[in-house]
Parts: sequence; structure tokens; C-alpha cells
Amino acid sequence: MATERVKEILSWYRSDNPGSLTNLARLLNHGKLAGTGKFVILPVDQGFEHGPARSFAPNPAAYDPRYHVELAIESGCNAYAAPLGFIEAVAADYAGEIPLILKVNNHDSLYDEKDPLGAVTSTVDDALRLGCVGIGYTIYPGTADRRFLYEQLQELTSASKQAGLSVVVWSYPRGSGLSKDGETAIDVTAYAAQIAAQLGAHIIKVKLSTDHVEQAETKKVYAKHNIPIKTLTDRVKHVVQSSFAGRRVVIFSGGPISDTATVLDEARAIRDGGGFGSIIGRNSFQRSKPDSLELLGSIIRIYKGELK
Amino acid sequence: MATERVKEILSWYRSDNPGSLTNLARLLNHGKLAGTGKFVILPVDQGFEHGPARSFAPNPAAYDPRYHVELAIESGCNAYAAPLGFIEAVAADYAGEIPLILKVNNHDSLYDEKDPLGAVTSTVDDALRLGCVGIGYTIYPGTADRRFLYEQLQELTSASKQAGLSVVVWSYPRGSGLSKDGETAIDVTAYAAQIAAQLGAHIIKVKLSTDHVEQAETKKVYAKHNIPIKTLTDRVKHVVQSSFAGRRVVIFSGGPISDTATVLDEARAIRDGGGFGSIIGRNSFQRSKPDSLELLGSIIRIYKGELK
Amino acid sequence: MATERVKEILSWYRSDNPGSLTNLARLLNHGKLAGTGKFVILPVDQGFEHGPARSFAPNPAAYDPRYHVELAIESGCNAYAAPLGFIEAVAADYAGEIPLILKVNNHDSLYDEKDPLGAVTSTVDDALRLGCVGIGYTIYPGTADRRFLYEQLQELTSASKQAGLSVVVWSYPRGSGLSKDGETAIDVTAYAAQIAAQLGAHIIKVKLSTDHVEQAETKKVYAKHNIPIKTLTDRVKHVVQSSFAGRRVVIFSGGPISDTATVLDEARAIRDGGGFGSIIGRNSFQRSKPDSLELLGSIIRIYKGELK
Amino acid sequence: MATERVKEILSWYRSDNPGSLTNLARLLNHGKLAGTGKFVILPVDQGFEHGPARSFAPNPAAYDPRYHVELAIESGCNAYAAPLGFIEAVAADYAGEIPLILKVNNHDSLYDEKDPLGAVTSTVDDALRLGCVGIGYTIYPGTADRRFLYEQLQELTSASKQAGLSVVVWSYPRGSGLSKDGETAIDVTAYAAQIAAQLGAHIIKVKLSTDHVEQAETKKVYAKHNIPIKTLTDRVKHVVQSSFAGRRVVIFSGGPISDTATVLDEARAIRDGGGFGSIIGRNSFQRSKPDSLELLGSIIRIYKGELK
Amino acid sequence: MATERVKEILSWYRSDNPGSLTNLARLLNHGKLAGTGKFVILPVDQGFEHGPARSFAPNPAAYDPRYHVELAIESGCNAYAAPLGFIEAVAADYAGEIPLILKVNNHDSLYDEKDPLGAVTSTVDDALRLGCVGIGYTIYPGTADRRFLYEQLQELTSASKQAGLSVVVWSYPRGSGLSKDGETAIDVTAYAAQIAAQLGAHIIKVKLSTDHVEQAETKKVYAKHNIPIKTLTDRVKHVVQSSFAGRRVVIFSGGPISDTATVLDEARAIRDGGGFGSIIGRNSFQRSKPDSLELLGSIIRIYKGELK
Repeated sequence: MATERVKEILSWYRSDNPGSLTNLARLLNHGKLAGTGKFVILPVDQGFEHGPARSFAPNPAAYDPRYHVELAIESGCNAYAAPLGFIEAVAADYAGEIPLILKVNNHDSLYDEKDPLGAVTSTVDDALRLGCVGIGYTIYPGTADRRFLYEQLQELTSASKQAGLSVVVWSYPRGSGLSKDGETAIDVTAYAAQIAAQLGAHIIKVKLSTDHVEQAETKKVYAKHNIPIKTLTDRVKHVVQSSFAGRRVVIFSGGPISDTATVLDEARAIRDGGGFGSIIGRNSFQRSKPDSLELLGSIIRIYKGELK
Repeated sequence: MATERVKEILSWYRSDNPGSLTNLARLLNHGKLAGTGKFVILPVDQGFEHGPARSFAPNPAAYDPRYHVELAIESGCNAYAAPLGFIEAVAADYAGEIPLILKVNNHDSLYDEKDPLGAVTSTVDDALRLGCVGIGYTIYPGTADRRFLYEQLQELTSASKQAGLSVVVWSYPRGSGLSKDGETAIDVTAYAAQIAAQLGAHIIKVKLSTDHVEQAETKKVYAKHNIPIKTLTDRVKHVVQSSFAGRRVVIFSGGPISDTATVLDEARAIRDGGGFGSIIGRNSFQRSKPDSLELLGSIIRIYKGELK
Repeated sequence: MATERVKEILSWYRSDNPGSLTNLARLLNHGKLAGTGKFVILPVDQGFEHGPARSFAPNPAAYDPRYHVELAIESGCNAYAAPLGFIEAVAADYAGEIPLILKVNNHDSLYDEKDPLGAVTSTVDDALRLGCVGIGYTIYPGTADRRFLYEQLQELTSASKQAGLSVVVWSYPRGSGLSKDGETAIDVTAYAAQIAAQLGAHIIKVKLSTDHVEQAETKKVYAKHNIPIKTLTDRVKHVVQSSFAGRRVVIFSGGPISDTATVLDEARAIRDGGGFGSIIGRNSFQRSKPDSLELLGSIIRIYKGELK
Repeated sequence: MATERVKEILSWYRSDNPGSLTNLARLLNHGKLAGTGKFVILPVDQGFEHGPARSFAPNPAAYDPRYHVELAIESGCNAYAAPLGFIEAVAADYAGEIPLILKVNNHDSLYDEKDPLGAVTSTVDDALRLGCVGIGYTIYPGTADRRFLYEQLQELTSASKQAGLSVVVWSYPRGSGLSKDGETAIDVTAYAAQIAAQLGAHIIKVKLSTDHVEQAETKKVYAKHNIPIKTLTDRVKHVVQSSFAGRRVVIFSGGPISDTATVLDEARAIRDGGGFGSIIGRNSFQRSKPDSLELLGSIIRIYKGELK
Repeated sequence: MATERVKEILSWYRSDNPGSLTNLARLLNHGKLAGTGKFVILPVDQGFEHGPARSFAPNPAAYDPRYHVELAIESGCNAYAAPLGFIEAVAADYAGEIPLILKVNNHDSLYDEKDPLGAVTSTVDDALRLGCVGIGYTIYPGTADRRFLYEQLQELTSASKQAGLSVVVWSYPRGSGLSKDGETAIDVTAYAAQIAAQLGAHIIKVKLSTDHVEQAETKKVYAKHNIPIKTLTDRVKHVVQSSFAGRRVVIFSGGPISDTATVLDEARAIRDGGGFGSIIGRNSFQRSKPDSLELLGSIIRIYKGELK
């Protein structure tokens, strides 16, 4: 039976049909965080995004697509997210063992562009035939032709909601409109979360931000209204507030591999700022399996309040 | 029973099917201006257009999507207009309490372009499934590739009219074809209203204009025929005339937050020039709720003639 | 019962289905020129093309969409052509009183481009639901990307012929491929008529041309074969010949408002050169109604041979 | 009853459905060359490609669309090919008198581009409703964006083969990839024929080539393997070989009007090199009708072996 | 009855429907390598890619489309792959004699571009009507607009999998993102294989690579983790590992014609590195038929372990 917290979260999405609510419920009710309203998701699209060696050489077992889904299952994640190939390689053999999210667009790094667009590499029909609970899509706010992305996402979101799937949006600022620091600036991150929410995302994924404020107009507003952005917890709070005052699930991604203490401190900030959880890729699969199970276990305990 | 004025306004749209007439009637017959043929609409797309902090930090209650629909209901507006995310966040819980307009295209400000195009972020099917009375779409006359916008609107208008929805067009001159002053010039504003009307808009939304005349050819015409454009009331009249001699509903938007006296004076000019009303965003939700209810109340009384 | 001349003209289009023939017959059999095989059509797209003030300020009654359809009816024109908004504003109220042609693409002048493309602003489905006898579409031969226009027209023509509508093509040379004089050169005008005919137009609309010859290769041909192009009548003849040896209806447009004598002389040249008539906008609606009725009456009498 | 040669030719296309074979058989079995496996086709798209005066002023009877179809019938051609307008102007009146090929893309010369793309001006549905045996499409190998053409042709070919029509591909090298001489170079012509064959053409139309070799890599190959390309007959042979070793019908076009002796010598070279015939436009319709009938008669007798 | 090895390979694709598994099984169970899990495929798209003379003049029998399918059958290849024209020329006459792969996109060399895109020249429907077991598609990772290719492939893959066909992806790095050496660099080749696998390819075709490492980031990773890339066998192993740890079939292509010893050494390296076989075009059909049968025979014996 659904917990009160799960019921509350689902109530924010009441305009969606029961199919999408069911798949959101599957995400909320799976793994060690089942029923808590918190998320830890394992995403593995780095093979496409950065290439196989950069992604998997640190832990060669990770070349095998079975490795990741098993890691996600054993560690008690809420879900496993990956591009078509990796999902196809496991969907039949692990059917029903963990919610799957099909990452339907991808971008490789064999050509270095200032304003990336990525490519749709699979579709809502693939998500359905493979038994996934939803799709994942990356937008790059700040790029010159971002409208192509927003419109591509619009079509996929519309089809997903009609098919009763959930929609997870990776909202990663990039491109000519931003400085390098601006990509993780607090104002830009909060704006990116708002955009994803307005585009109809059920779950929003952003990066943890710095206290840099990118846009001149916004800087004045932050100063005038004394918006607290100094600590990571402050900034998580502001991003949650910017996601419909907390009425949309927003989770945070980690970035490159870093030491365990840092990762756990980030999880604490996410928890204390009211964030809904972590989507944690390289910090999982680039560690050895035992190390990764331990790290994910600690994060989960932080979210459950079992670890300070 | 429909008032004579409502019947008159509906008679201008007799080529449309009864579905669209019904939804226009819902707009005309809701709120404190019901039956008068006048409109006050609350639009909230600034979260997408300008970012969350610039939009909602002045009144943090406004981060919550419920705030706006409740404000629109309590103040007695004719309708509430917003992008997909904000509408989805309230459509089920407030079903039937106020006419909703789905703003189906949007543009963010994370990349600064001279000729904005925006993106379609939701569709006519979304408007239908969410119980909306119509769609809203922004065109930018004056931009280099405006034909993409006109053609995108054409498809949405066609689908809306077939589905019995109403179509509200935000006609906002911008882009390489115009000087900065030209964006709010009276000739350009009147032209923008005409374009929206020719594109089949049921309701046209333009900005209040200045007495600047942008285009050389038009300047001669204004001079030769002594078209009065000196006062705001004059210019409202000219825009109404340019909207099929007053046979299309044209409403005016306010722009950035300003002092109450200015806003009320603008409402008086709209009324005295024969305009059909206001679409008033930042001047509503960036005020505190009591202030905003008072301001909207005053505007409504101006349109009802209860306030000089 | 159809006259012999109407039957003859229809016989040129025998490859089309009876639906399109019926609508062509409606055009041929309406107004004061009914049965003669001649045409006077009132087109009013200047509100979109040049803006409301430049179009309607000379005769402010013309801001009202009813003005034009009434003028077309009272003057005995064969048809009234206008964009979506103007047609929607009258189609229901004047249903069946005059053949309507929906101008399905338009171009505004708020951005000045060397190679205009225009935008599709309504469709064949709109023409059907509004009771029109056909669609109108403008191509700009001579522009760099004219293939977009030809392909857009191809799709609309195909849909129109399947739906039994007629197709009127405005063939207006423009763009980087031509000098300013070349836009109305006789060789370019004849070529533009040929292109429209090959694209499947039922009725071709071109501008009256000058005796300038634009293209070097063609100049040699005109010289070698002594093609007469000196008088306006000569040039009308040559354009008619270039429209499948007179087996396609080709009508001529007037351009900016000019004095009555000039307009009537042009009509005489059209008649004497074997042209099928006039499509006359600004010279109609920018005059006062009595003046315009008189002018249109004179033109009609010229075509009927009642006026030398 | 089909001749052995016709049966042999049809056997090369056995992967196509009986509908397409039937229409190929209609082409093979019509006119004075019926049953011989040879072709003379009259194509008239010059009105669109070069303009009416340059095309028809040398023989003004040719302005009339009836002229061409009658010429093709009287001279005993296998087929008549033209754009939509010219075909519509005769299809009903001459129904069943001669196989018609609808030229579905066209390019005008009012704008001079280095890399022409042309425009689709009619479709497979038009070909069907007009009783045509097939479509014709021009590709320009050597142009920068030729992939648009190949993909457009792919869609049309696929639709044609599904509908049981035949597909004739004009393969005319042009564009930035080639020098002026390269457009008719033997290596480029042979390559153009191969491309058309690989794209699924039933009948390939190329220009007669010169002994120029354009591409450096190919020049080495021609030298190393001693490929004979000195005489026109040699080059026809090489093009036929390059068209699947003679298992695709490849016909040759003439180009600008030239003297009778030259045209007949070209026909002899086509015959002696194993070519399948001629597609001959300007050399037909720019002559007077008696001269043109005589010329076509001579060509036909050359192909039948009745004239050395 | 399927061998254990065939069953094992098919088990990697269990998420696909039985139709696709059946066609993969047809490839695995045909020719002299039937049941071994190894492949030798004859691809002949060089007529389109490089032109007829450069491709076929070394062995003129190869101009005839029948030559290749017969060579593939006689030599005991698993399959024959070619563009539409070549497949249409043989599909009916050799129906059921060898699995056919329709190469659905192609690129010619008449225009030299840094970032090639190719063109779709046939479709899944063609593959079905011609009795093919699958489609082949080339992507060019490293090109600026590679997303067009990935999205085109996505649509074709989706349609193929729905229709029960197999999908073979030629993954050939090219373009502005890479140096000339980078096109065959080991890191780029491994990345290209990973991309194809993530895009849902059943069979991946890459070139044999050099020990050059192109990308700076990756160079560090190869050094840090001591990835062996010195010998060709090492590099084949790394590419196989990068193809889902060997759970996707990856085969290697040869390139320009070279001496027999080299070709056989390459086959040995493929075998010893755990590669799944060869796709060998020019080295087959540019030799005389006896030489080519002997070479292919030797390669097959290497894969069967009958030849060291």
C-alpha cells in the first residue's frame, strides 16, 4: 500500500493519466528507498557520451551491460537509466526486476561543439516494447538552437503521457548563451529546473550548482531579495523552490568521480535542502562493485535519515 | 443567458464552429466582467520567459503554481493563461473553476537572440486533455524568420478551430526588421494586430504603444491622413480600428511592474479607446496578494464603469 | 446554361475533376461578366502585406472586412480574394453571395528581405469549411529559395484539385536573380506565367509588364524572332501566348493606386491583347465607394465591349 | 504478343511488381519502335527550365501544349514526357493515345545557382490520376546537397513502384564538385548512370559525353585498364556497361538544337554502342513540324537498322 | 538445428522480437561458416561510393550485378550486401539462395565534403519486398551533423525491428571532429563501435584500427589503465570489449585491395582478438573470380580454425 508521502507526491501530478501515475508510483515504490519519496537512480549513458574507455576502463567489468542493471538491483536503486543498446541488452533477461528508464537522446564527444543538440536515438515505442517505466531526455538551456530540443521533448512528452509513461528531463545548461561558470551557476540551474518543470517533466534532473550568479538581471534580484545561495543546502533549497515550490520531483547529479566524503556531503546537502535524491553514474560504476555498493548504501541511509 | 454585448461579440466570429463560439462565450461569461464584453486575464509565463527568481522572488508565494490560479479565481479574472507545467499543476484540482488558456509556445532568456523564435512546448491535444478553453501563441512580427512562427501558428489555429477551442495570439513585434523603439511604435503595433487578425486569432494581445512611428512609408500615410496618435487613448483606438474596425477582440498587456496609478491610467485609456481589456501578469503576481486583489479589483471597476 | 465561351474555357481544363470544373464555372458565371469568359476580381491582402494604415487610411471604411465583400458584390466582380481573417469575418454572413478565394500564403513588410518566402497562413481545409471556390497562392520566381514556394504550392494544388477547388497563382518575380527592372520585364513576366501554368494553376495572375528584357539569352531570342513587345497590348498578347497559347486563364493586376484614365487604358490593353481580365485591389478600395463602383463599372464595360 | 527482345528487357526488372513491368511494356510496345527494345521519347520541360520564348519562339506552334503530344504521336515516339501543366493540358483529350511520363521535378533559370536543387512540382498521385505510365525525375550528381535530391527521388521511386509505375531518372552532373567540362566528362557520365541505376531507376537518361576524364583517381584507372573512350560509340558502350553491364535501359539526350547530320551521327553512335535510344526535345520541337517528323523518322530508322 | 554458439549469440538479442532473431539466425546459419558464429559478408556498394570504373574496371565481369551475388553464393559467404539497384537486379532470380542485406544509405564521391552525410536511397519496405534479412546503414561519427545520421538510423532501426529485420551498422569515423589519422585510431574505432551498439545495431561493422590514439582525454585513460593496443589482435580485442563486452556481433572491413598475405593476417588477428568476422568487398570482387574464391576460402578456413 502506498505511503502517505508517495500519495502526496502523486497528488502533484493529478492532471496526468493513471498510466503515468502508475509508472511514477513504480519508481517511488522500488528499492531501498521505496515509500520514502526519495530517489537514487543509476544512469549509464557515458559509453555514448564520453566513449567506452573513458567510461569503463577504470572498472572493466562495466563494459558488460549486465553489470549495471545488476548493480542497480543489488544496491537497491529506484531505477536504472540507459540508452537503447544498454537497455535492449538486459530488458528481457531482467524483466520486472527494476524500473527501467530509456534515455532517448544522446550526444557523443567525437566532435566538439559549443551548442550541442544531441540526437534522438530511441523513442516512446521502444520504451513501451522494452517494458520501461519512462523516458529520459536531455535539454541544453543556453544553446542557440535549444528550441529544437524543447520541441523534440514536447513531442516525446506528449507521446509518453498518452502512453502512460513517466518523463525524466536532464536539464543541463550549456552553449553560447553562457560562460563556462554559468553552466553550473545557481541562477542558471534554478532557471533550468523551471524550464523542465514548465515543459511537463515529471522528474527533473539538474547538476548541483555553485554560488556563481550568471545573469546580470538576476544578480540584482538575488541581491534585492536576499535569496540565500551561499551553502550547497541553500542552493538545493532554491532549486527545489524553483521547481514549482517543491511540487515537482527534482534530483541532482554528481558529475565526475570524486572522493567518498564529498559525495556523501553532497547527499546530505540534497537531503537537507529538500531535494528528492541523487542520480549517480560515474561515482557508482567507476568504483569497484563492493565500493560502489557501499557508497550507494551510505547515500541511501542518508536519505532515509539513518546516517547523519 | 448571454447579454446583448456577448451576442454581438460572438456574431463577429460566426464563421467559426459552435465549439469555438462556446469557448469564447465561456471567456466572456466568467468572472466579475462576465457579460460586459470586457476582459481581464492573468497570464503567468514569466517563469519560462525570464526565469523563476526574476519572476517570483518579489512575491515568493508565486513560486507555487496554485497561487496564480487562485489569484485569478479570487480576483474575478476571465481566465488564467500559462505554459504546460503550470497548467498541469492545477488543472485537475481546480477543474471547472476558471477558464484556462494553454500558452503553447515559449521562449527563455538564457541565450540572447536578435530574432527570437521560441518553441512549441505543448499542443492542442494537451489543451483538450487539460480542459482548457483555448490556446495562446506568441508571434514576433519583425523577425527574420517570422514565417516559421506564422506557419506554426497556422497549424495550431487550424487544429484548435477544428477542436472547438479558441485562439489567443500574443503579437509582439521584435527582431532585425525593427529598431528598439519600433517594437512599441504605434504603426508597428497596429500592423501586428492586423497580422494576428488575418491569421485567424479570436483574441489579439498587443502591448500598449508609444507615439513613435517606425516605418518611413507609414509615417507619410499617418501625416497625410491626420491619424490621431498623440494620446494613449488615440493609439488604443487606432489599434482597435486596425483589428478589423473593432470586430476582433483586442486586449492590451502591461509590461514590467509599475506604480498603481500608471496601471489604472492605462486601463482607463484602454477603456476609453474602445479596447477590450487587459492581460496583466507581473503587475498582478509581483504584488502581494492583497495589493494585487485590490489592483485587479480597481481595473475591473474601471472596465465596468464603476470607477472613472 | 453555360455559354459557348464558358464551355470552351472549361474544355482546356478537362483533365481536372468535375469539382474543380464546377468551381471554375462558378467564377466564370458570377457577376456582371458572367458568361463572357472575362474576369474582374477584388483582392484585399494589403492589410497583411503593407499594414493597415497604408492600405486603409485613404478610405477608412475599408478597415472593416464587410466593406470589401460588399464592394465586390455590388460592383459585380467575379470573386473576392483575401487572407483567412478577412474571409472568416464575412464568410458566414455573406454565404453564397459571391465566390470567395482564400489567399493561403502571405508576406508582411516588417522585415525587408531580398528573397521573400511568405508564410502559409491558411489551408485547403479552411477554404472548404469557409465555402470558398478556390485558393490563391503567391510564388516569387527569381528568389534564391523559390523551390520552397513551388513545393508548398505543389502540395496545396494537389490537395485543392483532389478537393475539387480551383487554384489561382499570383506569379510575382522578385529576388536576387533579378534586377529591380527585371521584376516587371516582359521576358520575366512571360516566364513567370509559364511557370505558374506548368505548376498546374487554373488561373494565373501576373503584373502588367514593361518592354524591358532582363535575361541576356532571352534578349537574343526576342531580337532574332522579332517578338513584338513594344506596346502594352503586344506584351499582354505575348504573356497570353506564354500561358499555353491562351489555353490557361491569365489575368493582370494593377499595382499602386493611379489615375482612372491609366487604369482604363490598361484594361483596354488587357482586352485587346487577349487577356482574361483584371485583379484590382488598391485601385478599388483606396477610392471612395462611389468612385470605386464607377471605375469597376467602366472596366467591366470595357471587357464587355460596351466601352471602347 | 511481346517480342523476345521485350521479354528479355523485362526480365532484368523481375524484382519489380507486375504493375511496373506492365508500364515498362507499354513504353516498349508503343510507336514505330514497338517491340525492338529501342526508344525515342519526346520530352518538353524547356518551357519551365529555360522559359517560353527561348523554348518556343523558334517554332511558335510549340507554345500550344497540344502541339507536342501530337508530334509525339505522329512521329511514332514511345512516349511523351512533360511537367504537370503540359500533361494536364492534354491528358484527357489524348487519353490512351501515347504513353505519358510526368516530369515531377523542375528547375527554372530565373536565378543562377551553382548547385541547383529543383523543386518537386507534381507527384505520383498526379501521375496516376492523369493516366501516365511513369514519372521522370532529375538528379544533379556533383552538387553540394545532392542528398536532398536522392532522398526525394527515393520517396518518389518507392511510391511509384508500389503504385506500379515506371521510373525514369534524368542524371545530369552539375555543381560545385565538378568543372564545367566535368559535367559531360565520360567518367562523370558513367558514374551518373551508375548512381541512377543504384537508386532503382527503370530507365536512365544521361547526356552524350566527351572524352574528358574529370576525376584524378578515375583517370589513373582508365589509363591502367585501357578503357576505350575515344569515339562517341566507345563512350556509349562504357556508359551502357556502367549501367549494370547493359541490364538497365539507358537512353541519351541531345542538348541544344544542332544540324541534322550531327543528330543522326549521334543516333548511330548510340545504336552502335548498344544504347537504348534517344530522348530528344529541342531538336524536335524547335524545328518545323515537317522537319521534325523527318528527323525523328530518320532516327527511328537508324534504330531499326533501316538506315545505316 | 541451431548450434550452441548460435543459440548463445541469439541470447544476447533476446529483447528483440522473434522476427529479428529469425533473420539473425538466417545470417548465422548460412554458408560455409554456418553454425560457427563467424561471418564473411560480401558488400558491394563501391559502384555508388567510388564510381563504376574505379570499382569494376580491375575485373570487368563485376560490372554485372549477377556477378556479385553468384560470388557470394559460390564462396559460401553468410550474406551479400548492396544498394537498392544491385539488389533489385538479382533478388527475384536468386530468391532464397543467400541472405541479402539492403544497404539503405549511400554516399557518392562526385563532391568532396569534409562532413559527409550520405542519402537514404531505399527503405525498410524495400528490404521487405525484396526478401532481405536486414538493412545496412552507415554512420559517420566525428562529423558535424552526425545527429542527422543517428536520427535517420533511429527511424530505420525502429521500423526494421518492428518488421522483424536485422540491422547492420557501418560505423565509419570521419569529419571535422577528427584528424585524418583519427579516422582509424583505436580509441575512435572503439568509440564508434560503442555508439553503434548503443543505437541498437545487431551487427556492427568497423574498420581495422591503428595504434594511434586520437583524443587527449582518452590517451590519459589508455595510459593510466595500461590498455593493450599495440598489436592488431590487441586492438580487435579492445573493440570487441567496447561492443558490450563481446555481447554484440562486431565484424571488420578490409579497405582497399591489398596482397593476399596481408588480408589473411588481418583475418587471423580478427579471429585471435575474438572478432566475429570480415566484411570484404574490394579484396573480393577486384580479384579475378578464381583468385577471389581462393582468398575467401582461406579466410573462411581461418575462421573455422582449419588454417592457422
